Amino acid sequence: MAEKLKNLFSKNTPNDLGFGTATGTGRNMNKDGTFNVKRVGEPRFRPYEMYHTLITISWTKFIFLVLCFYLSVNLVFAFIYYFIGIDHLTSMDHPMTETRKFIEGFFFSSQTLTTLGYGRVAPIGILASSVAAVESMMGLLGFALATGLLYGRFSRPQSKILYSRHAVVAPYKGATGFMFRTSNLRRNQLIEVEVEVSIGFTEPGSRSRNFLQLDLERKRINLFPTSWTIVHPIDENSPFYGRTLEDVKGMNPEIFVILKAFDDTFSQTIYSRTSYRADEIIYGAKFLPMFHQLENGITQLDLGLIDAVEKVELPQMEMNQLETT
Amino acid sequence: MAEKLKNLFSKNTPNDLGFGTATGTGRNMNKDGTFNVKRVGEPRFRPYEMYHTLITISWTKFIFLVLCFYLSVNLVFAFIYYFIGIDHLTSMDHPMTETRKFIEGFFFSSQTLTTLGYGRVAPIGILASSVAAVESMMGLLGFALATGLLYGRFSRPQSKILYSRHAVVAPYKGATGFMFRTSNLRRNQLIEVEVEVSIGFTEPGSRSRNFLQLDLERKRINLFPTSWTIVHPIDENSPFYGRTLEDVKGMNPEIFVILKAFDDTFSQTIYSRTSYRADEIIYGAKFLPMFHQLENGITQLDLGLIDAVEKVELPQMEMNQLETT
Amino acid sequence: MAEKLKNLFSKNTPNDLGFGTATGTGRNMNKDGTFNVKRVGEPRFRPYEMYHTLITISWTKFIFLVLCFYLSVNLVFAFIYYFIGIDHLTSMDHPMTETRKFIEGFFFSSQTLTTLGYGRVAPIGILASSVAAVESMMGLLGFALATGLLYGRFSRPQSKILYSRHAVVAPYKGATGFMFRTSNLRRNQLIEVEVEVSIGFTEPGSRSRNFLQLDLERKRINLFPTSWTIVHPIDENSPFYGRTLEDVKGMNPEIFVILKAFDDTFSQTIYSRTSYRADEIIYGAKFLPMFHQLENGITQLDLGLIDAVEKVELPQMEMNQLETT
Amino acid sequence: MAEKLKNLFSKNTPNDLGFGTATGTGRNMNKDGTFNVKRVGEPRFRPYEMYHTLITISWTKFIFLVLCFYLSVNLVFAFIYYFIGIDHLTSMDHPMTETRKFIEGFFFSSQTLTTLGYGRVAPIGILASSVAAVESMMGLLGFALATGLLYGRFSRPQSKILYSRHAVVAPYKGATGFMFRTSNLRRNQLIEVEVEVSIGFTEPGSRSRNFLQLDLERKRINLFPTSWTIVHPIDENSPFYGRTLEDVKGMNPEIFVILKAFDDTFSQTIYSRTSYRADEIIYGAKFLPMFHQLENGITQLDLGLIDAVEKVELPQMEMNQLETT
Repeated sequence: MAEKLKNLFSKNTPNDLGFGTATGTGRNMNKDGTFNVKRVGEPRFRPYEMYHTLITISWTKFIFLVLCFYLSVNLVFAFIYYFIGIDHLTSMDHPMTETRKFIEGFFFSSQTLTTLGYGRVAPIGILASSVAAVESMMGLLGFALATGLLYGRFSRPQSKILYSRHAVVAPYKGATGFMFRTSNLRRNQLIEVEVEVSIGFTEPGSRSRNFLQLDLERKRINLFPTSWTIVHPIDENSPFYGRTLEDVKGMNPEIFVILKAFDDTFSQTIYSRTSYRADEIIYGAKFLPMFHQLENGITQLDLGLIDAVEKVELPQMEMNQLETT
Repeated sequence: MAEKLKNLFSKNTPNDLGFGTATGTGRNMNKDGTFNVKRVGEPRFRPYEMYHTLITISWTKFIFLVLCFYLSVNLVFAFIYYFIGIDHLTSMDHPMTETRKFIEGFFFSSQTLTTLGYGRVAPIGILASSVAAVESMMGLLGFALATGLLYGRFSRPQSKILYSRHAVVAPYKGATGFMFRTSNLRRNQLIEVEVEVSIGFTEPGSRSRNFLQLDLERKRINLFPTSWTIVHPIDENSPFYGRTLEDVKGMNPEIFVILKAFDDTFSQTIYSRTSYRADEIIYGAKFLPMFHQLENGITQLDLGLIDAVEKVELPQMEMNQLETT
Repeated sequence: MAEKLKNLFSKNTPNDLGFGTATGTGRNMNKDGTFNVKRVGEPRFRPYEMYHTLITISWTKFIFLVLCFYLSVNLVFAFIYYFIGIDHLTSMDHPMTETRKFIEGFFFSSQTLTTLGYGRVAPIGILASSVAAVESMMGLLGFALATGLLYGRFSRPQSKILYSRHAVVAPYKGATGFMFRTSNLRRNQLIEVEVEVSIGFTEPGSRSRNFLQLDLERKRINLFPTSWTIVHPIDENSPFYGRTLEDVKGMNPEIFVILKAFDDTFSQTIYSRTSYRADEIIYGAKFLPMFHQLENGITQLDLGLIDAVEKVELPQMEMNQLETT
Repeated sequence: MAEKLKNLFSKNTPNDLGFGTATGTGRNMNKDGTFNVKRVGEPRFRPYEMYHTLITISWTKFIFLVLCFYLSVNLVFAFIYYFIGIDHLTSMDHPMTETRKFIEGFFFSSQTLTTLGYGRVAPIGILASSVAAVESMMGLLGFALATGLLYGRFSRPQSKILYSRHAVVAPYKGATGFMFRTSNLRRNQLIEVEVEVSIGFTEPGSRSRNFLQLDLERKRINLFPTSWTIVHPIDENSPFYGRTLEDVKGMNPEIFVILKAFDDTFSQTIYSRTSYRADEIIYGAKFLPMFHQLENGITQLDLGLIDAVEKVELPQMEMNQLETT
């Protein structure tokens, strides 16, 4: 049996996933498709990550950062106007406490940075005017930056591909198949959808990790109007072949899913990834349909049914088949 | 005959369109290429659809939304200034009705949000100044957003592929062909145009829907200067083969067209889709040319002729051929 | 001979350029790669062309349009303020001529549209304030639009591929080859450059136009650091085979060049097209090198030499070869 | 031996890198992937390079340019207001020196260009108002331009692929292999990574340069979570086969690396290039792992180890193999 699988692996491309064969048994890919990798040794100063970070952080953090930045710049300029002397500004010729002076500087700064320029307070001397000229230009550039970042955040390709929480092993063409289901949560129309499914596992007793691409019933669909159940037939080329659920758990498997599609709405290629571990596989279950045709001819798709499965009996043939071969 | 077709189908990839085989007989794809699918079970809060919606709604709705948003924000801030007290603003020291106070607050807000800042009215105290500082920043961010959305709407890949209203069955190389015609309504230059034509139909008596890709005379043209008549030869591999118009109507067919091209002007891949149903097929008609060369060597293309057909006699050979085979 | 060519054509894909076989003998493609096509029958109202037009017109026209738009909007609002009554604005309480009133309205409008808002002139009543509120928002949206258009114009993929003014027929591997030369005028780095060359011609006596793809010595280069001479070997598969310059002129040929590359600087696929007619082919010339290595190991590329050719003797074998076959 | 290699070259595509065979022995590609090419003969006026330049220059230069531009425009308008006469502006009716007048013009200009418009100084006459109207529009368009440029700079696809400083010749499957290592310095997720490795070299005694693609153990990985060691097996098809380090140095080789990947974060295809020369190859060394799995199952990647190698003994079989063949 072990011999048989070894032949099988040498037939396939052994490892084109980029994971090392000595990576141990931890999860390689998180459910959301990110790699379970911690990076060290990066250079301390990484200006090239700034845009990436500002584009990918959450909206809450992004808005908080923008507010902080706005406040900080205003505080800095408030200090500058305070030190130049508040008497270089108009309407400031009445006696004021020092705090009040600083506050007036702060609000003058905010009216300059946003190019509001009410003018109740305006700079008079060369120094104050110069600082205001610099600040207003900085303000415009800053909001130019914010414009770019907002657009970048919005227009960034973001797929929301739903995957069934569990993969199932269900009857398929007289034998069984490893299946999971996917649908598009977003309303943008995906076309030319392709999927690639691989498995990483460890033979009992071995310390080295094997990686293997799984054959699929269908690797590509042209349109993606509703849902797609991706099927890996468990035949003699499959690493699941002739193995019970316990056997499979002993392999400590991780099934990697890479899905690629073209987003017709924004003319962008998008990718989505996920992985299944042994405890996310149900033996003896099949997916219930997510869609049916209404009486008016319209097809209704219920996204809430992505995880809907029902128990089924699996054909008892794996062991027999093994014996006859 | 039914047997023969079954073999044929098993030869082809049976269903890579992503429509279910049990979808009934309603139209799967609308004329404009969208799917005839109603989605339920979506999560109630869908922030990821916001950009998509704002990009794809009509210009009328978009401008209306922008105006509403501008009005609402101004109303909210008008209330705030009114509750802070209108006496925290300059030029407001004369007696006014409550309504007038609110109105002054509203216009002060609009002058702050747009960073106009005439300054006839300007904030004096800390509270009013703070609110104005926040509002002006919100204004700038809001218009930054609008900039991004406007650009997103304009630059979104939009193809305007014309399809002939009817498909025809016309004489083709001694036999017949299923044909429809396409041209580019827009002036952007499309290149590397590819087309894929599939059919969905139900065998009389069966309740299951078959899907089948149709062979084409030519699947790809390098340039798309004028019009392109796409031809599916009705030979023995065709599901139309040996069937009369009545037979075809009985199959309740839907012919799906997926056209892909590269938009040379904006360096984007675009897709276009449509479908034909039985009542949009004319038996015994051919397309009249849409273009001819003028005397000065320039080719003239008349887009108004996309639907121009004339009646022709079809060769009476389908039935004979069937008998001889 | 005519028979021979017919076989040859049936071997090749006869016409995947999208030009009709009955298009006469006028030029199909202009030197700059645009199609020599006049479009009629377009719908009168074409909003979808607006962005396309604003992106592709010359800078002179674009700036002129922006200025006109700015002036027009200001004129419209100047009229509105004039009709509302100039006394609804501050600093306008001294006696003025009607013209002067209109001019003051115009400048107030410009200060509102750009959100300058000096405030010397400011609206007082509800009517004037409302108009100003609308105008300032329109101004912001207008400049948001201009921002998008400016970015769209700048970031649009624009290749500047140089083609030699003439194609040559030069000695090549004992026989002859049809050659032209290309280089990248821009400094962006092009990679994965592919070329496709086709010919359209009319057999003497025939009225129908033939289209044929030409075999090339090399269809693709990975990098494009200097120049590339594209070679079509004139062997027995070539439509030029065994034909003198006079013969070729009698065919009224047009050689179509489609070049595709990936612009590494902007991560965009770009296309470039051109065509050669009979009077742009030199029989018996070869290209002189455009680059040589300097003493410090740097390669120097002289773009001014793109058209540099020198006369050469062509091998006198075409006719003999024909006789022996 | 020389004969043998000649056969080999004719088997391979001889030169699809686009470098000329007569380019001498200088470096063709710099370490950062740019071509070692000096361009002359470019047209003097190159507006199409402006965007390219403004996008690709360093941030320091870009900000400096923006500041210079802002200053210059303000200086020009300061002169205009000075020549119109500073008495066309409000608050300017007290006696001033000529310098002071110019300075007031300058600050009024800056407040107009940025659409600040405090209003302490405001234009009164038609002339001054017209200039201010033009300047404020120019300001808005200028900052619209800056917005586009800032976004263009940020969103430009920028890969930071790390390459090991040295390539090594290490033991590989009983024989040896030419290897180098690569990793992604940035945090964006790269997928579908493909590599192409070519060599340029001169046979001793020859003056013509040969180019040859090198066979690789693996040309493509689906995911790129950690590092990738690219291996060219030194078998009989390799130009390194049976050559000592001295032999290889005598060939004056340059190994070209072209790496292509899809940036999942920004939905862009990116390319990276580098080259190795003879003095960057270590004979008898192997790469130490850059990653290992932590106890919690997370894989730790240390980017600082990209160059980590250790000395190894090479199998002494090259010469023997040569003798037996």
